[in-house]
Amino acid sequence: MNGWGEMAHPPQGQALGAQQVRTWGPRLGGMQPQSGPPLPNPQSEAVEMMDQIIHWVREDPSGLGRPQLPGAPATESMAVPMMLLNLVDQLGEEDEELAGKYAELGDWCAQRVLQHVQRDGQAVLEHVSEDGEELSGCLGRHQNPGHALEAGWFLLRHTHRRGDPALRAHVIDKFLLLPFRSGWDPEHGGLFSFQDADGLCPTQLEWAMKLWWPHSEAMIAFLMGYSDGGDPTLLHVFYQVAEYTFRQFRDPEYGEWFGYLNREGKVALTIKGGPFKGCFHVPRCLAMCEEMLSALLSRPALAPARPVPDPARRGAE
Amino acid sequence: MNGWGEMAHPPQGQALGAQQVRTWGPRLGGMQPQSGPPLPNPQSEAVEMMDQIIHWVREDPSGLGRPQLPGAPATESMAVPMMLLNLVDQLGEEDEELAGKYAELGDWCAQRVLQHVQRDGQAVLEHVSEDGEELSGCLGRHQNPGHALEAGWFLLRHTHRRGDPALRAHVIDKFLLLPFRSGWDPEHGGLFSFQDADGLCPTQLEWAMKLWWPHSEAMIAFLMGYSDGGDPTLLHVFYQVAEYTFRQFRDPEYGEWFGYLNREGKVALTIKGGPFKGCFHVPRCLAMCEEMLSALLSRPALAPARPVPDPARRGAE
Repeated sequence: MNGWGEMAHPPQGQALGAQQVRTWGPRLGGMQPQSGPPLPNPQSEAVEMMDQIIHWVREDPSGLGRPQLPGAPATESMAVPMMLLNLVDQLGEEDEELAGKYAELGDWCAQRVLQHVQRDGQAVLEHVSEDGEELSGCLGRHQNPGHALEAGWFLLRHTHRRGDPALRAHVIDKFLLLPFRSGWDPEHGGLFSFQDADGLCPTQLEWAMKLWWPHSEAMIAFLMGYSDGGDPTLLHVFYQVAEYTFRQFRDPEYGEWFGYLNREGKVALTIKGGPFKGCFHVPRCLAMCEEMLSALLSRPALAPARPVPDPARRGAE
Repeated sequence: MNGWGEMAHPPQGQALGAQQVRTWGPRLGGMQPQSGPPLPNPQSEAVEMMDQIIHWVREDPSGLGRPQLPGAPATESMAVPMMLLNLVDQLGEEDEELAGKYAELGDWCAQRVLQHVQRDGQAVLEHVSEDGEELSGCLGRHQNPGHALEAGWFLLRHTHRRGDPALRAHVIDKFLLLPFRSGWDPEHGGLFSFQDADGLCPTQLEWAMKLWWPHSEAMIAFLMGYSDGGDPTLLHVFYQVAEYTFRQFRDPEYGEWFGYLNREGKVALTIKGGPFKGCFHVPRCLAMCEEMLSALLSRPALAPARPVPDPARRGAE
């Protein structure tokens, strides 16, 4: 699984691999409206790309064109199995045949993500060795609370599909509550972008900045956790994150969310979109939370109590 | 010159190209102390690598293994010709034969760097087209005051070698005073890391952070500019930058400089070294500034006045 690095959030300007460009460049170009041959079937295109991705992840990443430096350790970035787990979820959501096709892959992805829980269950580490061991140095100690929370709700969906309540409890403990407790800034509120598992200073310049997407992912994760099991702790954390998020990220004047706050919560970049902030995390969060909140409100136990008849009007009924 | 990107300060974790790894990996490995065949001559190794770099820059960058995305415009990052200009300076410094060999290359590099002065001389832009035109979008508007200042003193060395006073005045105006005036934070002091030529918000998260290296480069640039021509404005700016630098970056308790301050000048990362801060910018700055200051102090006009004889002691002499 080498050569992928931080695929989910690559450094700005990082190019696709040579093979990717050759394979997908013309296809992406072909997606623009044009006359000529008919557009390919989006579903079969998606499955074809999924199979290519699986090949890169599980068999041979060399087609990605990212050379290994001599001496570099074989590492696994959590981004790879977690994003693949989300693809399994998406492709199988309304298609039993595809869900069956990718079921074993989903189990494999979940197992790979789970091996990022390290230090006797006290830390989720972004990078581990191919054998699931902690790596030395700051790469090994690197933590990304937003990623852990996002992986958390991908895993919750997986446990839901697989019907595995023991795994569900483990996920809530290790991928929701643990990253929230270590990643929430006790001084100014909000989730840190990066942390070092030994409490040392991370090497990422933006480590203490508050970014929108970890907060979107946290809202989904805690509301999903609460919806499934009803633990009020999870609802309380959802509310805490949502309160911070709507207070600090939302632009009350022109709409949309700002993406980048400094540690104290002040807007550091006034852009509403950029190389990493597109029309993705915010609408996904809002749509999923609205759906989950609506479902909660329509449950009998949570439905508003029928109005108690007014005793004074009883005689008139 | 495509495929090089921000070679001087690449995103963390960005791998060398496949060809680089094949060519230089074993050699760098071979530089460790070992018994066996004798070590290669460092000078001839340097010249050989320089010739390889020149090939990548001027003829064919494909060996770097950085694929072009379809549709990406052909751009020139100022980092490439400016760093190459510095290599020309270094290799020719004590070697007339090499200085002669690379003289034409030095002129070419200087001409390429100079074409980054855009907008009727009102802005230095980090990226321009291959033809020296402004690019559209935020890539085209991107400015890096520290880079412009660093390029400034590389160009000052070039004009010194070539004996070109008109170019020298242009360089001081466009690569020293212009980036300093636009890049200095009027509110909190210090040089911004990145700016947008239209005054829009940059997309780099650290744009308003104060990094050590632009300040090192500014100190060298302004002291060099003053040493050559004696303009007191340049000495005044040197002092202003040095005063901020030693006040904000230096660690009075444990020595060394911190590398990363927030906009207000507070230490944001407590690390003294990291993926980009090595033993380079600070010692280069201190050694060059000490050398220039010593040379200034030893000039007759600036040497301390001979002590005026004490009239009361005159009789005793």
